[in-house]
Amino acid sequence: MTMAEIIDGKRFAEHLRAEIGRHVVRLREQHLVTPGLAVILVGEDPASQVYVRNKARQAREATMASFEYRLPHSVPQEKVLELIERLNADPAVHGILVQLPLPPQVDADRVINAIRPDKDIDGFHPINAGALATGGDGMVPCTPLGCLMLLKHRLGDMSGLRAVVLGRSNIVGKPMASLLLRESCTVTIAHSKTRDLAEECRRADILVAAVGRARMVHGDWIKPGATVIDVGINRIETPDGKGRLVGDVDFDSAAAVAGAITPVPGGVGPMTIACLLLNTLEAACRQHGLPVPAGLMEAAWG
Amino acid sequence: MTMAEIIDGKRFAEHLRAEIGRHVVRLREQHLVTPGLAVILVGEDPASQVYVRNKARQAREATMASFEYRLPHSVPQEKVLELIERLNADPAVHGILVQLPLPPQVDADRVINAIRPDKDIDGFHPINAGALATGGDGMVPCTPLGCLMLLKHRLGDMSGLRAVVLGRSNIVGKPMASLLLRESCTVTIAHSKTRDLAEECRRADILVAAVGRARMVHGDWIKPGATVIDVGINRIETPDGKGRLVGDVDFDSAAAVAGAITPVPGGVGPMTIACLLLNTLEAACRQHGLPVPAGLMEAAWG
Repeated sequence: MTMAEIIDGKRFAEHLRAEIGRHVVRLREQHLVTPGLAVILVGEDPASQVYVRNKARQAREATMASFEYRLPHSVPQEKVLELIERLNADPAVHGILVQLPLPPQVDADRVINAIRPDKDIDGFHPINAGALATGGDGMVPCTPLGCLMLLKHRLGDMSGLRAVVLGRSNIVGKPMASLLLRESCTVTIAHSKTRDLAEECRRADILVAAVGRARMVHGDWIKPGATVIDVGINRIETPDGKGRLVGDVDFDSAAAVAGAITPVPGGVGPMTIACLLLNTLEAACRQHGLPVPAGLMEAAWG
Repeated sequence: MTMAEIIDGKRFAEHLRAEIGRHVVRLREQHLVTPGLAVILVGEDPASQVYVRNKARQAREATMASFEYRLPHSVPQEKVLELIERLNADPAVHGILVQLPLPPQVDADRVINAIRPDKDIDGFHPINAGALATGGDGMVPCTPLGCLMLLKHRLGDMSGLRAVVLGRSNIVGKPMASLLLRESCTVTIAHSKTRDLAEECRRADILVAAVGRARMVHGDWIKPGATVIDVGINRIETPDGKGRLVGDVDFDSAAAVAGAITPVPGGVGPMTIACLLLNTLEAACRQHGLPVPAGLMEAAWG
């Protein structure tokens, strides 16, 4: 049985973060600028706490400044907006991230729209979504950016390849489609209403699965030799009661057919945080009128 | 030989404009508001002059206020931006349209970004592009909006249908893809780098051609029974020297296969201006805190 190449996102992310760290040091030495990342966490959601902790730790490891704001679950929306206003104006803060989900009294759209677009390192502000959709310059959401890096590393020029994006969320599916279109792929967005998902997927040279359904994509949905990027992180039950994380792709059957595939965990996940740091670094450069470091991705893998 | 239903965009646009006109009258009678459309034309491009004249005439026919600004080809960018600032602040102007193309000394992006997003009736401002891409509320570009109306009228619920958009411009292809995705189609964007355009097109239940190449799409590219929307307007030479307008679709061969097809001229073209008036009417309602008229499209077709 042929086995696909396993795309080691964890290792790539480590290299990328190290490369980012070197740039941060250089930025401080040459320009007295330390990129600053502010993370806002509302409430006590355990998963969100883990994410926020990891983001802050990796920012510090890259010798960035990390600012954490923990607000109670009952915080009024106005208080969140006031904090964002303050961070928008704070020259030590170059990137602002609001951990989602938010409690019901806080309107996520209102909050995201309040972030200064050039500090919106998640790339969720409509100005940034619009820039991505129309080929302009803006912040690109971290998860699809991480997927793109893994794809570029594996495939190089993707022009003319057939890409199928499974899922149409604003956070992954839609921006992923825009990025692949920018790379001149022929892009199809498939989703829950698509009539024959398996058939659509089987046409894909590049398949990005981002639907949040455990192991939905089986080996017989995959074109032999295709590159498969699995964005899903789903917890399933196991007999020992500990549970286990799996992707949207059934790894074993898919790896027997695909040319290359990302594992879960250790594939896309680590790239997301690395790209958050990359966006923060770039935001710091732009806000100080400095050139944005180029070739970071290539150097990281190098 | 089976012949496709001809989608009469001209007639639909006439009905839609009449319906818009009735709403304009009501808006004036009940709220003392007259929707105002400002059109800026820079230079003497003959085609642009025709477009601007038609837009202004149809706005007046719908009893809107129409303001035309003609600037010399050599106008400095600052003067254009000053005019836009003035129109942004003018309460009688609800919609601002800058006729493209612009002369080289005027940066189209700068100009479009200067228009207040709620007066950007062309839907080209990044805020509006972002809203469309992320499913938010904003101005939708007129040509794809017109195409969508023709499709909805013909097909009703489009959920699960395979749509192929040929062309990836910011003005038509990309927003069209977003609109079709919003209707829950499975959407493919194909373009000049696509490997087998004919094969992609043959899979389409809905085919929107917006590439600007005369008669590129032949009948054998079309799935029997498909709905074909031809956005192209290309002038070709004729033996008598007068020339003739044709679409991106080879009409005769396509009409023998398709279930329905728009002609050129008389298909998408008239819908574009009607949607410009619709956007202006909606902009006026929003700017005065009034509800946006619903069901206009349905009423138009009757």
